[in-house]
Amino acid sequence: MDYKALLDRIAQEVAPLVGSGTPAEYIPALATVDPGRFGMAVADVDGNVYGSGDWERPFSTQSVTKVFALALALSLGGDDLWERVGREPSGNPFNSLVQLEYENGIPRNPFINAGALVVTDRLQTLTGDASSEVLGFLRQESGNQELAFAQEVAASESEHGDRNAALAHFMASYGNIVNPVPVLLDHYFWQCSIEMSCADLALAARFLARHGLRADGTRLLTRSEAKQMNAVMMTCGTYDAAGEFAYRVGLPGKSGVGGGIIAVVPGRCTVCVWSPALDEQGNSVAGVAALDRFTTLTGLSVF
Amino acid sequence: MDYKALLDRIAQEVAPLVGSGTPAEYIPALATVDPGRFGMAVADVDGNVYGSGDWERPFSTQSVTKVFALALALSLGGDDLWERVGREPSGNPFNSLVQLEYENGIPRNPFINAGALVVTDRLQTLTGDASSEVLGFLRQESGNQELAFAQEVAASESEHGDRNAALAHFMASYGNIVNPVPVLLDHYFWQCSIEMSCADLALAARFLARHGLRADGTRLLTRSEAKQMNAVMMTCGTYDAAGEFAYRVGLPGKSGVGGGIIAVVPGRCTVCVWSPALDEQGNSVAGVAALDRFTTLTGLSVF
Amino acid sequence: MDYKALLDRIAQEVAPLVGSGTPAEYIPALATVDPGRFGMAVADVDGNVYGSGDWERPFSTQSVTKVFALALALSLGGDDLWERVGREPSGNPFNSLVQLEYENGIPRNPFINAGALVVTDRLQTLTGDASSEVLGFLRQESGNQELAFAQEVAASESEHGDRNAALAHFMASYGNIVNPVPVLLDHYFWQCSIEMSCADLALAARFLARHGLRADGTRLLTRSEAKQMNAVMMTCGTYDAAGEFAYRVGLPGKSGVGGGIIAVVPGRCTVCVWSPALDEQGNSVAGVAALDRFTTLTGLSVF
Amino acid sequence: MDYKALLDRIAQEVAPLVGSGTPAEYIPALATVDPGRFGMAVADVDGNVYGSGDWERPFSTQSVTKVFALALALSLGGDDLWERVGREPSGNPFNSLVQLEYENGIPRNPFINAGALVVTDRLQTLTGDASSEVLGFLRQESGNQELAFAQEVAASESEHGDRNAALAHFMASYGNIVNPVPVLLDHYFWQCSIEMSCADLALAARFLARHGLRADGTRLLTRSEAKQMNAVMMTCGTYDAAGEFAYRVGLPGKSGVGGGIIAVVPGRCTVCVWSPALDEQGNSVAGVAALDRFTTLTGLSVF
Repeated sequence: MDYKALLDRIAQEVAPLVGSGTPAEYIPALATVDPGRFGMAVADVDGNVYGSGDWERPFSTQSVTKVFALALALSLGGDDLWERVGREPSGNPFNSLVQLEYENGIPRNPFINAGALVVTDRLQTLTGDASSEVLGFLRQESGNQELAFAQEVAASESEHGDRNAALAHFMASYGNIVNPVPVLLDHYFWQCSIEMSCADLALAARFLARHGLRADGTRLLTRSEAKQMNAVMMTCGTYDAAGEFAYRVGLPGKSGVGGGIIAVVPGRCTVCVWSPALDEQGNSVAGVAALDRFTTLTGLSVF
Repeated sequence: MDYKALLDRIAQEVAPLVGSGTPAEYIPALATVDPGRFGMAVADVDGNVYGSGDWERPFSTQSVTKVFALALALSLGGDDLWERVGREPSGNPFNSLVQLEYENGIPRNPFINAGALVVTDRLQTLTGDASSEVLGFLRQESGNQELAFAQEVAASESEHGDRNAALAHFMASYGNIVNPVPVLLDHYFWQCSIEMSCADLALAARFLARHGLRADGTRLLTRSEAKQMNAVMMTCGTYDAAGEFAYRVGLPGKSGVGGGIIAVVPGRCTVCVWSPALDEQGNSVAGVAALDRFTTLTGLSVF
Repeated sequence: MDYKALLDRIAQEVAPLVGSGTPAEYIPALATVDPGRFGMAVADVDGNVYGSGDWERPFSTQSVTKVFALALALSLGGDDLWERVGREPSGNPFNSLVQLEYENGIPRNPFINAGALVVTDRLQTLTGDASSEVLGFLRQESGNQELAFAQEVAASESEHGDRNAALAHFMASYGNIVNPVPVLLDHYFWQCSIEMSCADLALAARFLARHGLRADGTRLLTRSEAKQMNAVMMTCGTYDAAGEFAYRVGLPGKSGVGGGIIAVVPGRCTVCVWSPALDEQGNSVAGVAALDRFTTLTGLSVF
Repeated sequence: MDYKALLDRIAQEVAPLVGSGTPAEYIPALATVDPGRFGMAVADVDGNVYGSGDWERPFSTQSVTKVFALALALSLGGDDLWERVGREPSGNPFNSLVQLEYENGIPRNPFINAGALVVTDRLQTLTGDASSEVLGFLRQESGNQELAFAQEVAASESEHGDRNAALAHFMASYGNIVNPVPVLLDHYFWQCSIEMSCADLALAARFLARHGLRADGTRLLTRSEAKQMNAVMMTCGTYDAAGEFAYRVGLPGKSGVGGGIIAVVPGRCTVCVWSPALDEQGNSVAGVAALDRFTTLTGLSVF
């Protein structure tokens, strides 16, 4: 498939949507990004990468890193994680405390904030330095050794981090957070602050399209685990719009409030798209539209 | 693929699980069924059908018919339906009124009871006889003209139907039910009472594997609509266990409290399994296990 | 105390507020009432009645009748009622189904709609004709034999009664409604439709100020039951504004969406006020203000 | 009235209930108290104090101090407080985050934990040392200069304080907590740790029975404010059992998980009772029963 031509065509088609919606505004570092940006990249299972638009420009990955933290936690610690976090869609805005209370401190899935905090807590226990572990993994898989934490973004998140602090303390009251909450929050915010380009992310996520194999050919996850991670992304990866994303795009995906989305075509390729303006559910407007076009034009939806 | 041998192998493997769990007990007609039953059938896109165990024995389809009512409502009435029902997982037990109140009478998706009532209401408006329309469609697609309503089951459901009556009146208070509630409930309970075998159901659902084409080659749904229905089944088809079902099975599916589950391998085949004993979420214990084995042994998971 | 002069003074003071807010609009019969009306009456324990403004003009009592239905159900059936309905404030809008689901079909208190339906259901079982029983009681206590159901109001409520039908069916699904739902709803709506003046209501409620004694000196409730009814009115009588009502007025009270409010000064008198325009919680704006002035000027708050 | 004889009689009558229920167990300092204790004291408006049982033995006041913090915050800062906390019963377990989320970080009332945190936050802003202010006030009103914080209790609360930390951070995310959360929590836990006897508490609360006048005759609250505080205690003072407390006791009251309850007979006296074993709502079993007997025997219920 001529991915380069395809991505250029999609970029052109969704151009009228770029800038529709609103960039995340809760921290200054995100609010000042140019909403007119759009980039898209495909990395195939052989390691070739193709792109269009701002596909090599770094952006704040935010929740997209939850995919990598989860993969590491599963790889290093195994299935025990699932005793502390569920695999069901939340059916509620992503910060909601209601369901957490109803279900005794067990978050619905690893991609809502509460669940990602549990994953980071687990990774911290397993490695002693959760955020560095995620950063090292992303560097290795993307082949980009210059990836780094954006300290001012992390600091800004921390200053506005009362909701995440509330979630962490609330779960701690049920015994479902074991590291000290301030330490956990630091690692969580650092992990979210990592800046990467569409090319970096598409390359780094290839293990999900390669049935668990890392870039160097070693195994990160079993075939079954890789399949299962794709399933969780499909049902829980895009906040309270997972059903809509499955309906329109039909691929496992994970979005972040930085405007990035990573999607997986199992056995074939990964796709990363970025455009900062978000819809009401927190997903990139132009990003979702571009992925919609991608599966429509290629027929690569899993359905 | 030698489906017959495969199904026999699976039937043997899951035999120890048959009878685990509890058959639905809220109506006598369901409570008296033998929990030791197990049947499984595959229908390929060319119309061949293979089976094992009790695959030709009729059982109460219950919520599995929601798939067919939805397909008919979309086929006859188009996308307007989505203004009255969402496409997001519910994240709550399937009868819950909470989310319905929070979201002003718009059910989360067409497969929870509230959403299915809206679909039936729409179909009733479109055809004047929703349940007969569903029955006729099932007869035609399965090729089994003997399919019929089980009147005593429908009557029993009606006697115990206060929750569904509450849901319907509640949505009516928001203007989201337009037919008289008692009429709507009758059609809803009749539709749920239809008895079919695994073979019947696998054949009848083939349009989902055939990108929208009916048994006679005419088009029921566009390619895009068929893809979208599979997406909704993937994220919403198995009550509050859709995430778990995607994680274990990795196929679009729809279950019923009669113990039946229909699953779709797009472009390839449909699979129907039946065993009456249910888990806490209302899905057949042996049925889910059998589908899990099916995708593991064949690699046919969409992920 | 010169009640007549006091009521005239209060009427004058709250005149600027009369018409502030919005009359109930969900049924035509309530929406067409003149929002400029204001009446207030006091009935002392000896049976003297004083009034000001539209104090002798009948209005739709609506939820105010819940007090009388409760008194009759307790008088005829005793404490068993409290196994089917709680005595706690609801902390939620008065029609909410959420708490009802959380608490297995047991309404929080007898003054929210769900609880009043249970009371009517109990009264229907006890008497065979709940609404006539309430009407007869009101006629006898007020001394006004011309009190009657307003059939067009009841019919209008019934047409717009989907929420109450939903509540009733929902509780029936838990076994907490025993009479047929349509019969129950008829009696409920008839009971709410009774039209009375401030004078009528103040007289009829005197048993609450007289420690349980009826107008003819016979005992309706024990001293303890009368005290308890006042307590329930204090904590639950004014929808989700019971705290605010206690804070401002400091008397047991019960309001209705017709704009009427009945309040009790134990051992002393009853006060009834009416003005149709409601605040967001469904209580009469001028009515609450008038009662606030009443306790401020007289010092008759229980606190 | 011969209060001494009355209290002795009540102590005798409720003796069989002393020890029924379970002392609070979430912190060691509370769990080790002898559940067989019972004390009761009355302080009349003239400053005479009467008691029975363990009425002079100090116990952990816990939430009972919320009354005094609220009185100080209102006295020093006025009505602005009510913009940050409501006056409605919560209708939910006292730690619930659900309603807080639904109502944008504004707690329902000042006696649930969330509301008390807002009150302490306000008092901290007004005085710079909220907990010392409360302690000083209690010393002065009770005349007992030896009252002190129980540091090990406060430290223990802090160690188990994740729920309160979650509440505080959650409200901070809405801008409804302005002091640093750790500082706020320290003052909150210190305030709750103060140990007092029934005699101390009954004396200290007399301003509520004296229409706002302090022990030395100066004014703490206006007559209207004192009335309003009693109203808030009536509707919100006993967790999710305020309706039940009003029904049984019929007095404004405030309970704590240390087993203490303070009640007010406006214009007449205060009553304090203590017994550590709690019912499911967190109120002292023998304590509520004793107050029930008190109003039954004296007729001093406000209803």
